[in-house]
Amino acid sequence: MALTIGVDIGGTKVAAGVVDEDGQIVEHLLRPTPAENPDQVAHTIGDAILELSKGREIEAVGLGAAGFVDETRSIVRFAPNLAWREEPLQRKVSDMVGLPVVVENDANAMAWGEARFGAGRGETHLVCVTVGTGIGGGIVLDGSLYRGRWGMGAELGHMQAVPDGRLCGCGNLGCWEQYASGNALVSEARRIAEAEPDKAVKLLEIAGGTPDQIEGQEVTEAARQGDPAALAAFSSMARWIGQGLADLAAVLDPGCFVLGGGVSRAADLWIDETREFYTTHLSGRGHRPLADIRCAELGASAGLVGAADLARRR
Amino acid sequence: MALTIGVDIGGTKVAAGVVDEDGQIVEHLLRPTPAENPDQVAHTIGDAILELSKGREIEAVGLGAAGFVDETRSIVRFAPNLAWREEPLQRKVSDMVGLPVVVENDANAMAWGEARFGAGRGETHLVCVTVGTGIGGGIVLDGSLYRGRWGMGAELGHMQAVPDGRLCGCGNLGCWEQYASGNALVSEARRIAEAEPDKAVKLLEIAGGTPDQIEGQEVTEAARQGDPAALAAFSSMARWIGQGLADLAAVLDPGCFVLGGGVSRAADLWIDETREFYTTHLSGRGHRPLADIRCAELGASAGLVGAADLARRR
Amino acid sequence: MALTIGVDIGGTKVAAGVVDEDGQIVEHLLRPTPAENPDQVAHTIGDAILELSKGREIEAVGLGAAGFVDETRSIVRFAPNLAWREEPLQRKVSDMVGLPVVVENDANAMAWGEARFGAGRGETHLVCVTVGTGIGGGIVLDGSLYRGRWGMGAELGHMQAVPDGRLCGCGNLGCWEQYASGNALVSEARRIAEAEPDKAVKLLEIAGGTPDQIEGQEVTEAARQGDPAALAAFSSMARWIGQGLADLAAVLDPGCFVLGGGVSRAADLWIDETREFYTTHLSGRGHRPLADIRCAELGASAGLVGAADLARRR
Amino acid sequence: MALTIGVDIGGTKVAAGVVDEDGQIVEHLLRPTPAENPDQVAHTIGDAILELSKGREIEAVGLGAAGFVDETRSIVRFAPNLAWREEPLQRKVSDMVGLPVVVENDANAMAWGEARFGAGRGETHLVCVTVGTGIGGGIVLDGSLYRGRWGMGAELGHMQAVPDGRLCGCGNLGCWEQYASGNALVSEARRIAEAEPDKAVKLLEIAGGTPDQIEGQEVTEAARQGDPAALAAFSSMARWIGQGLADLAAVLDPGCFVLGGGVSRAADLWIDETREFYTTHLSGRGHRPLADIRCAELGASAGLVGAADLARRR
Repeated sequence: MALTIGVDIGGTKVAAGVVDEDGQIVEHLLRPTPAENPDQVAHTIGDAILELSKGREIEAVGLGAAGFVDETRSIVRFAPNLAWREEPLQRKVSDMVGLPVVVENDANAMAWGEARFGAGRGETHLVCVTVGTGIGGGIVLDGSLYRGRWGMGAELGHMQAVPDGRLCGCGNLGCWEQYASGNALVSEARRIAEAEPDKAVKLLEIAGGTPDQIEGQEVTEAARQGDPAALAAFSSMARWIGQGLADLAAVLDPGCFVLGGGVSRAADLWIDETREFYTTHLSGRGHRPLADIRCAELGASAGLVGAADLARRR
Repeated sequence: MALTIGVDIGGTKVAAGVVDEDGQIVEHLLRPTPAENPDQVAHTIGDAILELSKGREIEAVGLGAAGFVDETRSIVRFAPNLAWREEPLQRKVSDMVGLPVVVENDANAMAWGEARFGAGRGETHLVCVTVGTGIGGGIVLDGSLYRGRWGMGAELGHMQAVPDGRLCGCGNLGCWEQYASGNALVSEARRIAEAEPDKAVKLLEIAGGTPDQIEGQEVTEAARQGDPAALAAFSSMARWIGQGLADLAAVLDPGCFVLGGGVSRAADLWIDETREFYTTHLSGRGHRPLADIRCAELGASAGLVGAADLARRR
Repeated sequence: MALTIGVDIGGTKVAAGVVDEDGQIVEHLLRPTPAENPDQVAHTIGDAILELSKGREIEAVGLGAAGFVDETRSIVRFAPNLAWREEPLQRKVSDMVGLPVVVENDANAMAWGEARFGAGRGETHLVCVTVGTGIGGGIVLDGSLYRGRWGMGAELGHMQAVPDGRLCGCGNLGCWEQYASGNALVSEARRIAEAEPDKAVKLLEIAGGTPDQIEGQEVTEAARQGDPAALAAFSSMARWIGQGLADLAAVLDPGCFVLGGGVSRAADLWIDETREFYTTHLSGRGHRPLADIRCAELGASAGLVGAADLARRR
Repeated sequence: MALTIGVDIGGTKVAAGVVDEDGQIVEHLLRPTPAENPDQVAHTIGDAILELSKGREIEAVGLGAAGFVDETRSIVRFAPNLAWREEPLQRKVSDMVGLPVVVENDANAMAWGEARFGAGRGETHLVCVTVGTGIGGGIVLDGSLYRGRWGMGAELGHMQAVPDGRLCGCGNLGCWEQYASGNALVSEARRIAEAEPDKAVKLLEIAGGTPDQIEGQEVTEAARQGDPAALAAFSSMARWIGQGLADLAAVLDPGCFVLGGGVSRAADLWIDETREFYTTHLSGRGHRPLADIRCAELGASAGLVGAADLARRR
């Protein structure tokens, strides 16, 4: 049975695994990312692949990396976490390991993993929204991963949600991820805790007393205990996510949305409100089927599994 | 040489034509649409096809209709201008004419026409935005027309541009077409003429004195004569179009945008401002190639030609 | 005891009354407004005053009119309902009746009536917001009615709530009254009933089946029966009212807000949500006293009583 | 001739001066603010007053302080720069100096200084907008300083300009000062320099190469040299200022606006655009006189002079 290797290159660690045709991880290892030295990252990746390849026939390798990947799936044009600029990652790694290599955007790899083996199994048209620090996106259309003309498609977090809205790291104002991400959740929770501390008694207690110490985990825990500020922050995020999904449905008409990323682990706290908002703000509602809104199923290994499978279909 | 027939079904007239493989219209006719009697529309269409077919070998027929078309390209689910609901147009017409028939959304057919034989020739990834009364859209990805999971894709005019913005006919608030269409142009020109008549002296003169009589033609003519109100209305529309294209690029990363529809006939008055706004509001600018923004080339026959070609590829 | 006469000049009827120093109406009459003939309005007003004056010593007359009144309280610059332009109403009426006459904006007169004898008794700093078809406003500061430098103050409905928002009759975009008035309530209820009829079952039943027939009364009745669409429309209006009050508090820091107008008759359906939104969106909350938010108490006679009292203080 | 003393208490220095009835500063001194020890600030103020009083008959003292001042003009409820909370400043200073003392908000004092002796001379209804780091405000109505019911009036920077807009230090979203202040100017200039460095060549050169080093002075200098990014940042600020003035005119109908603060020193770069935007976005334009928009005239001494004059009118 043909095996491929998938590698998920994060800012702090490199996860690599041997994956079979059913998306099962046969073997798996983790290495710290030498992030302070971007030149060594390719070396670390190559080492991991060589180790996993020992005694196995590996067909190809798929690398998932946060950043803009070019349309030939060879070069990382810009990767904020690893300081890569026009990095010829495909060539470097394939030279080291002597195997076919493809490079994918990490959110694309995750989307593909979920589409093939996770929450999107059987769906031909699917949009995967990764709600983490920011928002990542991956799009599967007519059964294939969609990359765009130059590999820059599915940068979903940068649709504009609010004209003249909050400043985004991308340099624009009002990007969706400024309202609908984990960062937005935390920022809204802190804002309420600062401005209305009596609504955030539990949240502040959990966070050790000051709004600055509130992070996603504190908001989640406080929301589970019924803290009004934490619930309001989740509600705001949930509605903005719903609005963005409605915008995406106007463009793409997918069969389902898969919501992943760190914030989706607490999806029970907010996904119903996202569904409700989506349903009531979808243009053409009543004259069209409703896309399903689901949680991702593969968790942290979606990117690795997706990258491995994309290598198989290179 | 294989010929097909394309039909563009509008609210006032039905245009049908015999089209060859190069997108050339070999013969062409026009019939009034019996809009007050939606049942007769299929009959009118069938008649036109039969007349055009005389003495010719026709391979297939493509029908372009404003409205939601189902994913099997057979049924018009909802067509506002023709009062169709779940209309089995494909079956009705193919029964009459004895030929293979496909039904397409009209904006999709136009996009395909432009992609194959017009401004988008040679482009694999293209978004066509039809700026008329409202905004229509068509998307070509990886060289194929994109329809969505249920045939409802590319309803581009209904992405939200302004939260809690202007009421749209679709029942939502702040849809893009409320800011970036011909209707928006006229409404903004009337608003300025009403509120600041001294800025709209020429515009009001051309319109016969009152803001209510201002239509698109008057705004265009006044803008050509330098009327400040008309120019401001074009400028507003141009910028909102640019913002929407930037949002679409974040999702789709197309190689080019083709702008069609009635308002694009005066594109010299506004398209440069759209390009400038797009370029300065695109997320990731500087790290990615810029999609071209072009005017449609086929004019009113784009839909007919596109529908005919789509029939060939059924 | 000194008596004055107050007149409330509406688009359909003229209400006039003799009012004592305690704001009690001693005698009262109603006349239809000859709105199709603006010249006759002054005559109708004069007649009513003369009739009420018979056998009584009247000190002065106060006229309340919808429209812009100049800073000398003599001339109605612009009255949409009565087609007055630069109407010298003070002179016309005083010539007829031989008494001192002052002209006031009707919302100002209402605010004064409430401040002196209604919900604002004892308050020195008060903002009255009349939520009817649109939004009217009156401001009492340091115990005096505030008119502005040229008599145009307190046009509260025309603060901008949403940049590039809904078109207002005043020619601007996004005015507060487009979101926070009775018209906004009806428009939102119709929108939801059209787009999501399953949420508006009762509302549509009450309105006789079609969204177009929904008016304020239907929304109110449906909301009382728990109709989700009607409740959502009230909720939207309530929150926008709360936001506007928070903006006004940033400028004026009043001791209380008095909410009047037709929509305030159903205040039990929405005023709590307005208070909650105000409290949580007030800048500086926690470091400042909270203004009271109250319902008007004088109902339809507030304008008449206020105009009469302002005449006394001319 | 009666003399009073005015004191302007800033975060870094205390400016005090003896002022005559014509608003002339007779003598003047500066002391560093012992900001790290808020208790000593009253002592520093008292010392300065005693020194200036030597050999003179002083009628009263006015203190201007950034922060919320209570309606009795005695207590500073909250002063961010000096860490005062419920500080009984009036009592402390009057105990030290044995003179009548009034405490005023610093922006109120500036507004009064400009109204009496500066750009607002002769105006009875005036709004002063201080465009510095944030936005401060002062309102003069019917010839008197307006303070609000509890002394919190004229916090103009915290009207909402953009729903769900940028986070403000006050805990709200979308406050006017997030769009129309010096901070907003710098933040917009940095944003453009980061996202479109080719538009900010001069600006970046002046700032030493990196967007982070851009401050107000750099934006001003670059704008004078025609730098497109700097000009765009000024233009954005100018328009948002104009919108806010239009909102204020809807509420207050002032005879003039006086624009002060650090950013007004470069008013030639932006005030015309503010005037134009104001004129075209004022509700009721065409039916009302236009308030004048002027630059402040007294510069940094406006607060001191205003506080001194308010002491005279205590």
